[in-house]
Amino acid sequence: MSKKTDVEVRGSRKHMIRIGICGYGNLGKGVESEIKKHSDMELVAIFTRRKPVESVQIKSKVPVVHIDSAIEWKDKIDVMILCGGSAKDLPVQGPKLAKIFNTIDSFDTHAKIPDYFKAVDDSAKSGNNVSIISVGWDPGMFSLLRLYMNSISPNGKTYTFWGKGVSQGHSDAIRGIKGVENAIQYTIPVDEAMEMVRNGENPELTTREKHTRLCYVVASNEADEDRIEKEIKEMPNYFADYDTTVYFVSQYELQTKHSKLMHGGNVIHMGKTGDGNNHVIEFSLKLDSNPEFTASVLLVYARAAYKLSAKGENGARTVFDIPPILLSELNAEEVVKNLL
Amino acid sequence: MSKKTDVEVRGSRKHMIRIGICGYGNLGKGVESEIKKHSDMELVAIFTRRKPVESVQIKSKVPVVHIDSAIEWKDKIDVMILCGGSAKDLPVQGPKLAKIFNTIDSFDTHAKIPDYFKAVDDSAKSGNNVSIISVGWDPGMFSLLRLYMNSISPNGKTYTFWGKGVSQGHSDAIRGIKGVENAIQYTIPVDEAMEMVRNGENPELTTREKHTRLCYVVASNEADEDRIEKEIKEMPNYFADYDTTVYFVSQYELQTKHSKLMHGGNVIHMGKTGDGNNHVIEFSLKLDSNPEFTASVLLVYARAAYKLSAKGENGARTVFDIPPILLSELNAEEVVKNLL
Repeated sequence: MSKKTDVEVRGSRKHMIRIGICGYGNLGKGVESEIKKHSDMELVAIFTRRKPVESVQIKSKVPVVHIDSAIEWKDKIDVMILCGGSAKDLPVQGPKLAKIFNTIDSFDTHAKIPDYFKAVDDSAKSGNNVSIISVGWDPGMFSLLRLYMNSISPNGKTYTFWGKGVSQGHSDAIRGIKGVENAIQYTIPVDEAMEMVRNGENPELTTREKHTRLCYVVASNEADEDRIEKEIKEMPNYFADYDTTVYFVSQYELQTKHSKLMHGGNVIHMGKTGDGNNHVIEFSLKLDSNPEFTASVLLVYARAAYKLSAKGENGARTVFDIPPILLSELNAEEVVKNLL
Repeated sequence: MSKKTDVEVRGSRKHMIRIGICGYGNLGKGVESEIKKHSDMELVAIFTRRKPVESVQIKSKVPVVHIDSAIEWKDKIDVMILCGGSAKDLPVQGPKLAKIFNTIDSFDTHAKIPDYFKAVDDSAKSGNNVSIISVGWDPGMFSLLRLYMNSISPNGKTYTFWGKGVSQGHSDAIRGIKGVENAIQYTIPVDEAMEMVRNGENPELTTREKHTRLCYVVASNEADEDRIEKEIKEMPNYFADYDTTVYFVSQYELQTKHSKLMHGGNVIHMGKTGDGNNHVIEFSLKLDSNPEFTASVLLVYARAAYKLSAKGENGARTVFDIPPILLSELNAEEVVKNLL
């Protein structure tokens, strides 16, 4: 952090947190769009795996840099936000970039989080950086709420419902079927199941009882729609355990009616106190744009990583480790006055 | 913390967090009831202002001690949970006991929080203790959610609605009217106002538009009900700015139908990302017992205060300062595995 740009804020000089984006897909574009909301942050460069870098057209007036040259930006970036995918990008980029920069990522392959944490932790410690992993809304905000609910009400039961929302993984799975030109898959929570939880019935819910799946599919002209529908509904892991509905639509209808990457969900906890008193705690998100909201969460944790690093800390962290105050642009006095 | 009681947990010895309760009203009784849910905590004594202490009948088999003898318990209690009221008890007890013990309180006189924080901070530092103030659900959980929402979505707007729930302050105000034998007042959020917020209309809501007030009143036989109703509805600060409904009922009906101290509320945030994409974030509580749930929150922050003190920290804190992981009885590996 040798070079710093400062701005005059309320009479005192404030350091601008210099942000790099690594990966320019939907999430990277979201970070680029939402960073403008934070007066203490500035975007300094966007990094890409693609060659030539000129092939990547971005909206901002900042350099596009190949990821192999990231080391040259070590002193020009306070926090690198990793916007790659959990399957292929992050397992490589996370540990590699945590040696150079403070980093934030949204790693969400749940079973592999402990190994990923260890790899990033080792790198971040060796580079004296802070890396907050698995940030977003789930894992992320939903995880936090599950922790708060379960701590406060340890004998209760927490349920997570997702949707209505577009699942990229499931949409991709349908697109991989022969004869499918395009597809969008919505995950839909079962209202009756949510009501049972809210009513304190403590239901044991199967996968099928919690969510349904709704698919809009564009088939090529010669394709056999019955065969495609059957292949979708019987696909193991993705669809076989769910009640799935398939509609065949035109490319035009898909683009005009199903282009928004909406998502959201509910974390609902039901517990008891005293002599049979119930309490229901619920947190919900309804998002028109999943990547833009996820980007918004990544940005405030970038602020926290910057503050922790400035205090001399290093190593990997999760959202559970971060004092809420570090997320805010306001100081301690302001949050007590305005939000407590 | 010279004396420690340990328990064998999963093969390793775990220190039991020794809890004292100061004040045996509804909140203190809630802490006494809910501490049993936490396997790492034990109640060691209940402190009272009343004399003789034998006049205080408690449920637990622990000593009842006069508050003036609290100093004698310095090495026998890890965290003292202050269950007195914000008006008269806490301004005195908070700073006084923070010199002796780690403390938790639910101070909720909003305008006076900065001064109270300062007084407790000075005491806690001089006694090398950690004191977390203004803990509960509002201030407390609702404050946290307001901070998360406003940080992630700084251009959005946050609304807090309370109820349906019993307001002790408003019930007491009615009981102070001549000819009133008993009364319960419910604060009720206006559904239409909540829907406007959820629909992204960003309404400017007056006090009257957000909540209504519903009063069940037991009048003495000779009392003039019209006069009582008028006095309630015109009471400044408490009722004059609200649409208030008054029902006169029998003492029997009040006791059988309105004895539960239910409460709750909703924090709703509406914001925008990108090119006109909306998001709605909502947190809600529906509580059969306000004091028992508040007690549940105090207990997990007692755990956090104990952990911070064990790390050598001291001074006053608010919920904004506390890393969520400190609230949990689970360790870092377990929360990552089970809740992230």
